[in-house]
Amino acid sequence: MRIILVGATGDIGKSAYKALEKGHEIITVGRTGGDYQVDVSDLNAVKILYERVGNFDAVISCAGDASFAPLAELNQKTFMVGLQQKVMGQVNLVLAGLDVISDGGSFTLTSGVLDRDPIRMGANAATANGALAGFVKSAAIEMPRGVRVNVVSPGMLDVSAARYGAWFQGHKPVSSHDVGLAYVKCVEGALTGQVVIVE
Amino acid sequence: MRIILVGATGDIGKSAYKALEKGHEIITVGRTGGDYQVDVSDLNAVKILYERVGNFDAVISCAGDASFAPLAELNQKTFMVGLQQKVMGQVNLVLAGLDVISDGGSFTLTSGVLDRDPIRMGANAATANGALAGFVKSAAIEMPRGVRVNVVSPGMLDVSAARYGAWFQGHKPVSSHDVGLAYVKCVEGALTGQVVIVE
Ligand SMILES: NC(=O)c1ccc[n+]([C@@H]2O[C@H](COP(=O)([O-])OP(=O)(O)OC[C@H]3O[C@@H](n4cnc5c(N)ncnc54)[C@H](OP(=O)(O)O)[C@@H]3O)[C@@H](O)[C@H]2O)c1
Ligand SMILES: NC(=O)c1ccc[n+]([C@@H]2O[C@H](COP(=O)([O-])OP(=O)(O)OC[C@H]3O[C@@H](n4cnc5c(N)ncnc54)[C@H](OP(=O)(O)O)[C@@H]3O)[C@@H](O)[C@H]2O)c1
Repeated sequence: MRIILVGATGDIGKSAYKALEKGHEIITVGRTGGDYQVDVSDLNAVKILYERVGNFDAVISCAGDASFAPLAELNQKTFMVGLQQKVMGQVNLVLAGLDVISDGGSFTLTSGVLDRDPIRMGANAATANGALAGFVKSAAIEMPRGVRVNVVSPGMLDVSAARYGAWFQGHKPVSSHDVGLAYVKCVEGALTGQVVIVE
Repeated sequence: MRIILVGATGDIGKSAYKALEKGHEIITVGRTGGDYQVDVSDLNAVKILYERVGNFDAVISCAGDASFAPLAELNQKTFMVGLQQKVMGQVNLVLAGLDVISDGGSFTLTSGVLDRDPIRMGANAATANGALAGFVKSAAIEMPRGVRVNVVSPGMLDVSAARYGAWFQGHKPVSSHDVGLAYVKCVEGALTGQVVIVE
């Protein structure tokens, strides 16, 4: 398959890349790196990306900023980061891609553990994660031509423990190999409308 | 208790009002109606509202626009309505109120059934509903001074069936009396971090 992978340079994106690179052609996208530089929080930029890429069978997004701060210190501007970036950015990939992805293609987004197992300073990410779960469940019933949509929800990755571990007290790191498998399941399998938990 | 009720003129707001009016002092808020006219999607306007109201023990929000449209017709602007209004608007009530609500006070927000039982044209509302579930679960662990936060998630109300029924094929209308009780449970009870389903 021809797969567009957004956020390929990130911790999760690398896991997805490794798991899929052998069997597929992967086109990488990031704001600053990858084959195409695009900010997916702009729907028009995503439309232009798809035109430039041409045919594709799957889109994987491992991208999505959120604000990590104590609840009492969040304001409208910082809270909107998660809604604009992690939610709208990933939803844009679906809205712009619905009509141009191959028949039977798939969209796989990324959320995370924080809406089911919250941490201090995680309210903005938890909100975005819950939003993505609601989105895929609902969007799946309106997908045309057998197109599917799912979201992978991993715990904190082993490779990210050095960076995030201090905030995720007592969270057991998840294997980045297992996280990669979840993207394989969503792209090569037949699931739709699911939150694929990796723990 | 002294309760601020946002969206008191709406179908859900009326149910909450009826269930709570006997035992409590209720201050009503809407964009166009109520004791105070405020657009809660503006955090500063909410801060000013709280200053004007003075002491309060509970905030109930039954307000939150979302865009109802076929997935293929949603764009970034229409999708952001649900994120700005239904999510950010209700979250603003919590962010602005954290430090000024009474000890042991409560915030009760409103989502809805569409993230667990989706309908066509409901993807924006489903996304907002999921977001609010993630938010209350996470925000609850950072609440100061015994303050609580929950979200009521009703099915389509009996009183709303004439307005929305054509979109909610086969959905069993829920009793608006039962919906009122859910707000009583959240305000007078001890729950926190919960999605209170009314079906
Ligand atoms: N790492 C974990 O343990 C973990 C666990 C669960 C969930 N998550 C979630 O998964 C997502 C990715 O996490 P990560 O740790 O892999 O992040 P990361 O290492 O910071 O990488 C993020 C990647 O996404 C790209 N990106 C971000 N915003 C973008 C945008 N608007 N447009 C295009 N590309 C964009 C970045 O590229 P540029 O820098 O070039 O923009 C980068 O390649 C986040 O939402 C995170 O909350 C992470
Ligand atoms: N009715 C149902 O069957 C049902 C079931 C489940 C969930 N829900 C959800 O529950 C919420 C309320 O539904 P509803 O049917 O009761 O709505 P509604 O009848 O349209 O009433 C909405 C109320 O909220 C106020 N409001 C809206 N946006 C506001 C803002 N930004 N600032 C201040 N006030 C605002 C409105 O006042 P103004 O008009 O003066 O602004 C009005 O009083 C919606 O999010 C809806 O999706 C509804």
